[in-house]
Amino acid sequence: MKLWEANIRKVVPYVPGEQPGEQRVIKLNTNENPYPPAPGVVESMYAFDTDRLRLYPDPEAGILVRALAKRYRVKPEQVFVGVGSDDVLAMAFLTFFNSDKPILFPDITYSFYDVWAELFRIPYRTVPLDERFRICAGDYDIPNGGVVFANPNAPTGELESLTDIEHILRHNEDVIVIVDEAYIDFGGTSALQLLGRYENLLVVQTFSKSRSLAGMRIGYAFGSQTLIQYLNDVKYSFNSYTMNQVTLTAGAAALEEESYFKKTIHKIIATRERVKEEFQKLGFVFGDSRSNFLFVTHPNIHAKELFEALKKEHIYVRYFAKPRIDNYLRITIGTDEEMDVLLDFLRVYLKNSDEK
Amino acid sequence: MKLWEANIRKVVPYVPGEQPGEQRVIKLNTNENPYPPAPGVVESMYAFDTDRLRLYPDPEAGILVRALAKRYRVKPEQVFVGVGSDDVLAMAFLTFFNSDKPILFPDITYSFYDVWAELFRIPYRTVPLDERFRICAGDYDIPNGGVVFANPNAPTGELESLTDIEHILRHNEDVIVIVDEAYIDFGGTSALQLLGRYENLLVVQTFSKSRSLAGMRIGYAFGSQTLIQYLNDVKYSFNSYTMNQVTLTAGAAALEEESYFKKTIHKIIATRERVKEEFQKLGFVFGDSRSNFLFVTHPNIHAKELFEALKKEHIYVRYFAKPRIDNYLRITIGTDEEMDVLLDFLRVYLKNSDEK
Repeated sequence: MKLWEANIRKVVPYVPGEQPGEQRVIKLNTNENPYPPAPGVVESMYAFDTDRLRLYPDPEAGILVRALAKRYRVKPEQVFVGVGSDDVLAMAFLTFFNSDKPILFPDITYSFYDVWAELFRIPYRTVPLDERFRICAGDYDIPNGGVVFANPNAPTGELESLTDIEHILRHNEDVIVIVDEAYIDFGGTSALQLLGRYENLLVVQTFSKSRSLAGMRIGYAFGSQTLIQYLNDVKYSFNSYTMNQVTLTAGAAALEEESYFKKTIHKIIATRERVKEEFQKLGFVFGDSRSNFLFVTHPNIHAKELFEALKKEHIYVRYFAKPRIDNYLRITIGTDEEMDVLLDFLRVYLKNSDEK
Repeated sequence: MKLWEANIRKVVPYVPGEQPGEQRVIKLNTNENPYPPAPGVVESMYAFDTDRLRLYPDPEAGILVRALAKRYRVKPEQVFVGVGSDDVLAMAFLTFFNSDKPILFPDITYSFYDVWAELFRIPYRTVPLDERFRICAGDYDIPNGGVVFANPNAPTGELESLTDIEHILRHNEDVIVIVDEAYIDFGGTSALQLLGRYENLLVVQTFSKSRSLAGMRIGYAFGSQTLIQYLNDVKYSFNSYTMNQVTLTAGAAALEEESYFKKTIHKIIATRERVKEEFQKLGFVFGDSRSNFLFVTHPNIHAKELFEALKKEHIYVRYFAKPRIDNYLRITIGTDEEMDVLLDFLRVYLKNSDEK
């Protein structure tokens, strides 16, 4: 090792799901929306005055912040925006988790939490989910430097009640509690309604899943004005202009398209519930996902084997070689047609392995 | 202060130049390019398949990284990209500056360096520029945790020679040396040609100035494969997908437009040299800027007064209330027409104050 390598921050980075180069794949591995963005988003891009690109964007991301405030009935001062919810969460970790005490999050959850903790040298402790992958709210009644959890959780899809979330908030009034709601639009109730009562609550959401804009990178957070101010101070200390002009325009346009948004969500939920029934018939075991994916295991076939078999058929799902979940697959809900191809393959594959 | 406020990272953020809301202003305050982006960029946006936005972008930013590698004749493994050069520099500070020894940078330079150092709790020490605002390369021959400087420097516009830069590199082989070349295209020679000899050199550039894409947020860095790998590890630990799909497409398209790029640069340089002559006639004192701005002072009128007078005329320039430079204005080179309006105003204003 060269001397100049001594003081480099060395990390083990998060590994995102594959983005296969081939065109003819069924991509159910990164929880993307199978439907295109709303027509208004497309129109906003074609109407965009490209000459303006020579100028810096509005550092306050005004049009998007105001559109979010209006849509979710909060003050603009309660809204923070970033380059996907990953950027929002990274900024929140950097801003809010500076205690000597460990922050707490579930042992099975979004794989980025420990990566950010390691990156920013934040002490952390994972709290085991129960055997059905549910959060036990009482487990968080211990001294800590902050709490973060996803609801619905990833990769399990399990939704916790607002009662449980409020239990966690009530027992953690001296630290920041972050509720990561990337998948909330697929059937959950947002903790947003608790905002008035808990000044230390940060609710994080994203345009990547329910609004079909993963490729545009838009995440946002709601919190008390105090919290959002601290978050913005850190953001402005990092990069004044994170959201480009096209993104701001497209994001604001997406929020105008409420009926398209609802229609898309309903289609995905309908497909999910149908697939759940079919998966049950095939012998899969899984919880009651309220997200746009299922987290499944099968008593007869190891998840890793199935993952490889599906990949050979150009069907990509997600497999995590991690403790407790290494016999599970996370399968994104695609279009009905895509799910039918998946189901047809599984029927044959499971029948063949029964006969072996 | 609430208890939950105790462990929040409190910072004094960077304050970017104003983005005035009114339309009819002459905006010479944030070093934007007065000319629109290249025609190919515009075409790439109209040709963009918006259905793809439902999918995550390529986390490796392949099309942009390859286009940069081809244009600048380096390996793709030597290229890092980010959300403007601010993002690239913030990631570089986080990755490379982890020593107990202070990092070094000039006392007068890009105002973000000390902001990042404070944000990431990096010890730092500023090294005074000489009385003509030039770097004395020998001043950096002292123990340190890393070196960063802008060339041409901001807000002075002064260009240092590759001989001086190589002196700094040769005397700092055990730390990372970052050369911030945001303005290099306006008449400087890039340190890129030293890359083969110094594995600890990082050269940072941007699409915001010379390529008229401030509104799109694209920055990049060149370094040894080792350095770029470390930088990418941290970036992937922060946010896997920072560059959205539209940005990647537009950035790659911009690099195809070499003749438009050169034409624009030449126009700006020609205007700058003409404005230098006129400023000299008006009695302003300034260095030999090689950037797209001038950094000027006047023996008879205080910069603050002139700044306010210009603002009243809807001409925005930049004033820094900072030690050593609080009697200077940084004036971006706009179109010839814009500079003529500025010059006309200054001629009258200076004449009137002479008569007082």
